[in-house]
Amino acid sequence: MERKKVAVLGASGYTGSELLRFLLVHMEVEVTHVTAEKHAGKKLSNVFPHLSEYLNLELNSLDADSVPIDVEIVFAALPHGKSAKIVSALYGRDIKIIDLGADFRLSRGRYEKWYGEHPCPELIDEAVYGLPEINRGEIKNAKLVANPGCYPESSILGLAPLLNEGLIENDSIIIDSKSGVTGAGRSPSLDSHFCEVNEGVKAYKIGEHRHIPEIEEVLSDYSGQDIKVVFSPHLIPMNRGILSTIYVRLTKDCTTSELLNLYKEHYAREIFVRISPEGVYPSTAHVRGSNFCNIGLRVNDGNNTAVIVSVIDNLVKGASGQAIQNMNIMMGWDESEGLSGPPVFP
Amino acid sequence: MERKKVAVLGASGYTGSELLRFLLVHMEVEVTHVTAEKHAGKKLSNVFPHLSEYLNLELNSLDADSVPIDVEIVFAALPHGKSAKIVSALYGRDIKIIDLGADFRLSRGRYEKWYGEHPCPELIDEAVYGLPEINRGEIKNAKLVANPGCYPESSILGLAPLLNEGLIENDSIIIDSKSGVTGAGRSPSLDSHFCEVNEGVKAYKIGEHRHIPEIEEVLSDYSGQDIKVVFSPHLIPMNRGILSTIYVRLTKDCTTSELLNLYKEHYAREIFVRISPEGVYPSTAHVRGSNFCNIGLRVNDGNNTAVIVSVIDNLVKGASGQAIQNMNIMMGWDESEGLSGPPVFP
Amino acid sequence: MERKKVAVLGASGYTGSELLRFLLVHMEVEVTHVTAEKHAGKKLSNVFPHLSEYLNLELNSLDADSVPIDVEIVFAALPHGKSAKIVSALYGRDIKIIDLGADFRLSRGRYEKWYGEHPCPELIDEAVYGLPEINRGEIKNAKLVANPGCYPESSILGLAPLLNEGLIENDSIIIDSKSGVTGAGRSPSLDSHFCEVNEGVKAYKIGEHRHIPEIEEVLSDYSGQDIKVVFSPHLIPMNRGILSTIYVRLTKDCTTSELLNLYKEHYAREIFVRISPEGVYPSTAHVRGSNFCNIGLRVNDGNNTAVIVSVIDNLVKGASGQAIQNMNIMMGWDESEGLSGPPVFP
Amino acid sequence: MERKKVAVLGASGYTGSELLRFLLVHMEVEVTHVTAEKHAGKKLSNVFPHLSEYLNLELNSLDADSVPIDVEIVFAALPHGKSAKIVSALYGRDIKIIDLGADFRLSRGRYEKWYGEHPCPELIDEAVYGLPEINRGEIKNAKLVANPGCYPESSILGLAPLLNEGLIENDSIIIDSKSGVTGAGRSPSLDSHFCEVNEGVKAYKIGEHRHIPEIEEVLSDYSGQDIKVVFSPHLIPMNRGILSTIYVRLTKDCTTSELLNLYKEHYAREIFVRISPEGVYPSTAHVRGSNFCNIGLRVNDGNNTAVIVSVIDNLVKGASGQAIQNMNIMMGWDESEGLSGPPVFP
Repeated sequence: MERKKVAVLGASGYTGSELLRFLLVHMEVEVTHVTAEKHAGKKLSNVFPHLSEYLNLELNSLDADSVPIDVEIVFAALPHGKSAKIVSALYGRDIKIIDLGADFRLSRGRYEKWYGEHPCPELIDEAVYGLPEINRGEIKNAKLVANPGCYPESSILGLAPLLNEGLIENDSIIIDSKSGVTGAGRSPSLDSHFCEVNEGVKAYKIGEHRHIPEIEEVLSDYSGQDIKVVFSPHLIPMNRGILSTIYVRLTKDCTTSELLNLYKEHYAREIFVRISPEGVYPSTAHVRGSNFCNIGLRVNDGNNTAVIVSVIDNLVKGASGQAIQNMNIMMGWDESEGLSGPPVFP
Repeated sequence: MERKKVAVLGASGYTGSELLRFLLVHMEVEVTHVTAEKHAGKKLSNVFPHLSEYLNLELNSLDADSVPIDVEIVFAALPHGKSAKIVSALYGRDIKIIDLGADFRLSRGRYEKWYGEHPCPELIDEAVYGLPEINRGEIKNAKLVANPGCYPESSILGLAPLLNEGLIENDSIIIDSKSGVTGAGRSPSLDSHFCEVNEGVKAYKIGEHRHIPEIEEVLSDYSGQDIKVVFSPHLIPMNRGILSTIYVRLTKDCTTSELLNLYKEHYAREIFVRISPEGVYPSTAHVRGSNFCNIGLRVNDGNNTAVIVSVIDNLVKGASGQAIQNMNIMMGWDESEGLSGPPVFP
Repeated sequence: MERKKVAVLGASGYTGSELLRFLLVHMEVEVTHVTAEKHAGKKLSNVFPHLSEYLNLELNSLDADSVPIDVEIVFAALPHGKSAKIVSALYGRDIKIIDLGADFRLSRGRYEKWYGEHPCPELIDEAVYGLPEINRGEIKNAKLVANPGCYPESSILGLAPLLNEGLIENDSIIIDSKSGVTGAGRSPSLDSHFCEVNEGVKAYKIGEHRHIPEIEEVLSDYSGQDIKVVFSPHLIPMNRGILSTIYVRLTKDCTTSELLNLYKEHYAREIFVRISPEGVYPSTAHVRGSNFCNIGLRVNDGNNTAVIVSVIDNLVKGASGQAIQNMNIMMGWDESEGLSGPPVFP
Repeated sequence: MERKKVAVLGASGYTGSELLRFLLVHMEVEVTHVTAEKHAGKKLSNVFPHLSEYLNLELNSLDADSVPIDVEIVFAALPHGKSAKIVSALYGRDIKIIDLGADFRLSRGRYEKWYGEHPCPELIDEAVYGLPEINRGEIKNAKLVANPGCYPESSILGLAPLLNEGLIENDSIIIDSKSGVTGAGRSPSLDSHFCEVNEGVKAYKIGEHRHIPEIEEVLSDYSGQDIKVVFSPHLIPMNRGILSTIYVRLTKDCTTSELLNLYKEHYAREIFVRISPEGVYPSTAHVRGSNFCNIGLRVNDGNNTAVIVSVIDNLVKGASGQAIQNMNIMMGWDESEGLSGPPVFP
């Protein structure tokens, strides 16, 4: 059977490169079109020497008309705003679109509060939030999927089983996240200059990060309650990985072991979520390069606070791997196709 | 004037080496005796090549009788249990002792619950907890000082101003700490093997770390209330530094700016505590190698939660620098003698 | 068709774990037996949490009789000496063996000079050196393959085209290698303790490393000359990767471009060797996690010295990936089966 | 006695920050003027939070007229070209100038070949090369000192004793240098973006680095011979440190121990050069934050090649510490004033 033709818009960043890594070993697809505004005209292997000998493609500039007509699947890994515009221009075609940016993750009002005016608000309602562990059914039938942000991915997966059972006290959710530096993208800046990051850890945008409205909206929709969270992101001197330590007050007494069982049951059929044994907490090193989310937890004696630790590779389950999983679901393929390799440790 | 003679017991670990770094530039003292059980008989420069040409001393085995009679100040950087024994043997002398271990930080009952039987419980009441920002007066007159643990140091300094004003809701304190690897000491183990730590972040001993009773005891004594905390330590791929992100519910409405002013006033006379401007959060990189504790904070809209970020160099303000500061206070010297150099950035 | 059953002896180290990573996605094989002396009786996922949900195997102790009789392929990733003994015990079976240790890489006299007495010298002559780029033909028919050391792998691939053309002046070869820390194995030691390695670079075993006789023997055999090298290994604060900078005097005038062409032709049919364009030098980051060897070079003006830069992932092309490639050749399978995924960048 | 007033031109880069670290603890000076083109008008502590509470100065734009008339010592840490212009404008004053840039390191012809036209060639002959271990006498009487480049500093110190004795064969010098990322400065670029550097090592500018003419000119002047070198710089994932591994053919048979003795004698009176014992090679970790150069070496059996390993902290002995040492010599102060603290390990 012929492979489906795929385009990657915004292929010169880290999520773009990671998409290519998975697409290149995927049995059902073939990448035939790649774009990168700043590098248009260059060979892909010029921008990503690690991919030389893989794809003999030239980078195009971003333009809906240049996307070949036989492309059936489009990944957009673009800055917010840019994404919506190109998606809008391509939406009339008979294609599936997975947008890795922020343009279709939020409802209209929330988007405008955090990002300003939306370039094509009429498409917002068409988009399905692409987190299979909470809404696989909708993804199956979607034409446009909004791939989750990396912090929301790790946070929501860590909270869903408790929310689902109504076990969390209102207004008690605190998420303390630690991220590797690829989360900040590939554009040089003092904040991601090697010597400023290495040998240090810092907090940033406490209570102000744009992933906050995404977490709150998804959790509220999922639980049917109005969820607010305290969210503090931190920058860690490593390339990949997010570890979110989540604190919640439980609405009733539970033991660590009871909660672990709840999580195991909740995620029993999920191939990309693994629950750690009691007393063991996950490390980002154990999911590196893979689409796994590992979760461990403990109930704190005394004040009935649960501490949940959720780890992902921010470039994989937190971005490109999740996008591939979404494509697989949208196309009716095996959900792990292209994603079955073990983590790369160490 | 003659320099005071100093002994460093346990000089082959990271806190030992860091003590020497400060003592070597201190104008009032002279190191004349160093011990290291595993390396007895070796030259110090053999164990620490970075100190070659500085101290032409040989490492001794640990033995009270071998500590020269003219030594007036003793630093003990030893495993728990070992410390108490040698302190007990030296206590009759006319000396000042700063213990960097855990043996004299806790009251008797607490110690035994977390560490087992105490080797010389009768000395526990003699020891003064060595955190000048909360009890400088007692340190001045102490003969034996228990130097704080690194996690408690960063946590207590981050919480003291709020506790002092009664601004924290009972049972709401959550401390999420991120530590560099020197905190785990210099003994090789899989947990601190380079390839297991590098490019990863993990949580460990959630709710079970031995620094929890220390934090709770000191905060309870300080506030006159029974304080419990949720405490989660994390290991970060860097040598030095602790960043503690502390979450508390406030008992009354406050703005970020009001709290920052409170912190500035509270620490106005403290030379080693610096408060970050609004919107800026401290990085461990900005205190590296120095005795500073930098603190930033923000009040989260909506649920009146304050997020306080407190950073120290775990080997300095969290261990050896704090010990030097304590010595200076005990001896009536300038509190910053030996500690006045700026942080080493980057 | 049924998958061939495979055993991995010494599965708890980094090369063992990396073998499993590739074997788990290999279409022709199935891992049915794993050993790890120190962890016998434990579940594999206990020792390697990143592999949980992949292999539900228990670790056995090392014992030829325990290796199931239907195992057809054996990988030995064991300390020197141990390897030879078990290989000897299994040699009578109808199996293929790839030994990742040092026991069968050297001729008898050389082995004894550098390692001491050999446990079963009679097998040495049976073993084929497993570097396909220089002796693929012999590997095809081998029953026992000695997988190259990591430093030799990068050095020999960097030198082969020049040696093959007789372009190198006798006695002029200098190899300056920089290695990540996985090269030192997974056993904790002060030398690979995080804080001793991080933020530093050091040289070690200059002129004394046990990979020197291997480099010299293979290069001498390959060139028909008596080759000696100056070899200096260095430890770099990273998990994976070896970069060897190789200096040689050329026997005749050549330009950079001529040499690059020579390298491209020499390796034209090799799928795992990539030559960088003129003016570009390879980074270990561009081969991470993959079986590639990337090579760049430059002829230095004036003194006719060629500087060749050769990079590999020490755990892959320098160990486990090379072992898989050797298995593929020995079994007549596609040489890149299991190894076709792109490097993991960044 | 009154402290001498000092200006630091270009204070917002890493060498600028490091100059301030040393000047702030120097007993003879006081920093009264700092400049930073991009940050003019900002507080210094805004650009360098680690220095807050130390210097309450505002950053000025670069302009000779703004340098206060009572400034007696000027450090210029500026891009090449810029430095020469301001030095020229200030040269008429009764001041001492230490230039940390490249403008006065090379003779006129060499400068123009590697950098283009010189902005004020007439000053080149006035400048003294600031490497005290080879020309302390000239520095003493200099008004303008050209502080060495970081790679030349480590290379020249590693070679001087052998050159001085005529022990090196012509044209045999190969310098393989490994540098931390601060060497590339503080301006953001893809090459020093955290994720591009971390977990990798690469070579760059082989045979083309601008420090090559400096090494060759200084070594030629020192030895009275026409010295050429092969030089390959490498980028290492760490903040600070340069390790140069230097390969030379000896003109006569020597043992490792004989050469070590030669080095010890040669540097017997140098307080900042330390020679490692036989069999021990220096690590950059052992000089971090200090003005030391540590040197180890070994003679390779067989081909009479000496391998010399020389390490410095590129920001200290390779830049700002060396500049302070030069100031001390120029002013007749104790050569180690401000520089006497031990390395910061780990």
